[in-house]
Amino acid sequence: MNRVYNFSAGPSVLPEEVLETARNEMLNWHGSGMSVMEMSHRSKWFDEIIKKAEADLRDLMNIPANYKVLFLQGGARTQFAMVPMNLMKKGKADYVNTGEWSKKAISEARKYGKVNVVASSEDATFSYIPELSPDTFSRDADYFYITTNNTIYGTRYTKLPETGNVPLVADMSSNILSEVYDVTKFGLIFAGAQKNMGPAGVVVVIIREDLITDVQPEIPTMLQYKVHAENSSLFNTPPCYSIYICGLVFEWLKKLGGVPEMQKINEEKAAILYDFLDNSKLFKGTVRKQDRSLMNVPFITGNKDLDAQFVKEAEEKGLVNLKGHRSVGGMRASIYNAMPIDGVKKLVEFMKEFEVRNKI
Amino acid sequence: MNRVYNFSAGPSVLPEEVLETARNEMLNWHGSGMSVMEMSHRSKWFDEIIKKAEADLRDLMNIPANYKVLFLQGGARTQFAMVPMNLMKKGKADYVNTGEWSKKAISEARKYGKVNVVASSEDATFSYIPELSPDTFSRDADYFYITTNNTIYGTRYTKLPETGNVPLVADMSSNILSEVYDVTKFGLIFAGAQKNMGPAGVVVVIIREDLITDVQPEIPTMLQYKVHAENSSLFNTPPCYSIYICGLVFEWLKKLGGVPEMQKINEEKAAILYDFLDNSKLFKGTVRKQDRSLMNVPFITGNKDLDAQFVKEAEEKGLVNLKGHRSVGGMRASIYNAMPIDGVKKLVEFMKEFEVRNKI
Repeated sequence: MNRVYNFSAGPSVLPEEVLETARNEMLNWHGSGMSVMEMSHRSKWFDEIIKKAEADLRDLMNIPANYKVLFLQGGARTQFAMVPMNLMKKGKADYVNTGEWSKKAISEARKYGKVNVVASSEDATFSYIPELSPDTFSRDADYFYITTNNTIYGTRYTKLPETGNVPLVADMSSNILSEVYDVTKFGLIFAGAQKNMGPAGVVVVIIREDLITDVQPEIPTMLQYKVHAENSSLFNTPPCYSIYICGLVFEWLKKLGGVPEMQKINEEKAAILYDFLDNSKLFKGTVRKQDRSLMNVPFITGNKDLDAQFVKEAEEKGLVNLKGHRSVGGMRASIYNAMPIDGVKKLVEFMKEFEVRNKI
Repeated sequence: MNRVYNFSAGPSVLPEEVLETARNEMLNWHGSGMSVMEMSHRSKWFDEIIKKAEADLRDLMNIPANYKVLFLQGGARTQFAMVPMNLMKKGKADYVNTGEWSKKAISEARKYGKVNVVASSEDATFSYIPELSPDTFSRDADYFYITTNNTIYGTRYTKLPETGNVPLVADMSSNILSEVYDVTKFGLIFAGAQKNMGPAGVVVVIIREDLITDVQPEIPTMLQYKVHAENSSLFNTPPCYSIYICGLVFEWLKKLGGVPEMQKINEEKAAILYDFLDNSKLFKGTVRKQDRSLMNVPFITGNKDLDAQFVKEAEEKGLVNLKGHRSVGGMRASIYNAMPIDGVKKLVEFMKEFEVRNKI
């Protein structure tokens, strides 16, 4: 089989150009005589790789100088613990519950302090982003936590909550670099790499410097932001190869025109799919229109057998990983940055054809 | 520059054959139409990759069925915390201090309980493995901790301590798979991948099932062995690509004849270097003979300028990363499994030539 169109929710498609570079440099990076996998993390070469990756990410997201950028291990899951362990000084935080990942973050945070769930959309299978009323916010919370894009349910915040002096913390795993965000609105952003940045195994943390403080010594050294910030992500051996691939993705994105240009393309891709869904007699989206994600598009036919048949036939056509998450059912097309517009067009073409063949 | 002989202490040289396979499969793994980096960790393909990696490692190390094999993130450094957090039920453990990494493990463990340092070789810059007298062992310790090979100082245990009913825990990061070990002698073995297994970003934990227990809920979920064991390392998205490369290294090692054959080759490589050092008038090893590592060989001329000149000239000849660790000085040749015997021969050849040119 040739390369497929991979609609996986993560790990997910990478730009072909990035994979080609990685392939070409596999045995000998830039004349170093070795693979990036074989380099000491203290070498001048890796120093160049990690510094360039950070500089490019700062450039792409317009990250101010008073924010640190960290490349860590353990994924978003470890951040679910690190955020409260490091930031809950007064022992209290506000969380919005918009899906499985918020729920997991909430349940982990409850180990370390009082969690106030200010709003939830669980009543309707998380198919919308709840209205946030500042009256319900805790004025003295250590932070306010949201999940900017919900991979499983296909929702996203189109407006950030106004939290005043309370730092806004965001799990941006599934939509970082997909649209323009004003980093200064956040105290801390984290994102697992395996959707819009690179391979699994590295999580990027963007943290405002005043939130990097001494913490209780019983917190494992590896879970202290301060330790990693003071060592520029080189406290221990970092996931070097994953950082290298992220760097290649950042380069690719810069060449493409940066995040504003990427956002335009993403809006175009999403529109192709949503416009079709809105006019289809067979398929329909599962999310309230104004909260629709640009990255993850769940849809159903309403008939489980037909859903399964669709997924199977799509796969035969090289449109793979379209099966929906078990909690929503149906289908889900994840159309991250690296999904070419052609992939979305091919998908919609096939949906049209499938609809004709399966008229009710 | 062509490929070099890379004597880096870690991340370090990988088998060229493994890198070639990774290169060839970069854009399309086994006809899947995607890179391993792009695969869902829940896909049938990745399931095949991780299961085969585990099976091959079990085979290579003869790991009994009552041990779990886990592929985790956070490196050996995170294990320094996970071991005491999970295993210190009575709050007491014995540690042997044989170098920087033992010291760091000890200092992390002290956060979680009482650490009894039963022996240390710090008095002589860790240039030997101390005698262990069972009289000093705590009969009621939760575990007994050693570092089987000391990367910085170039020492290794040639005999394991007899700890009776107290589980032996070993940091085997720098010599796993380099010589035959009887896994049943250990309660827990862990090893960062980046020396003898693969790229940085994955740490392998081999743990006897009776040591996998419920722990205090305040321990971050990601730091609980039980959680990872119950989910076969798929509790969260694992470092998939690093696991894939480890799998290729395991295949390579099996084809080569497994660990007994690898040990023979390693003994041969080490002998070439140590025999030369023992007869050289210019260079000398820094470690007590009976405790010499098969993996990391530190040596000095006794003259700092000459050391620096040696490192520089060697590099020009494609023998790279020979500079010693700052705490020992001089040179260090790390000759892990993937270092070909030819690399060691070339190094000794150059040392001979350098010695002739720099007669005292």
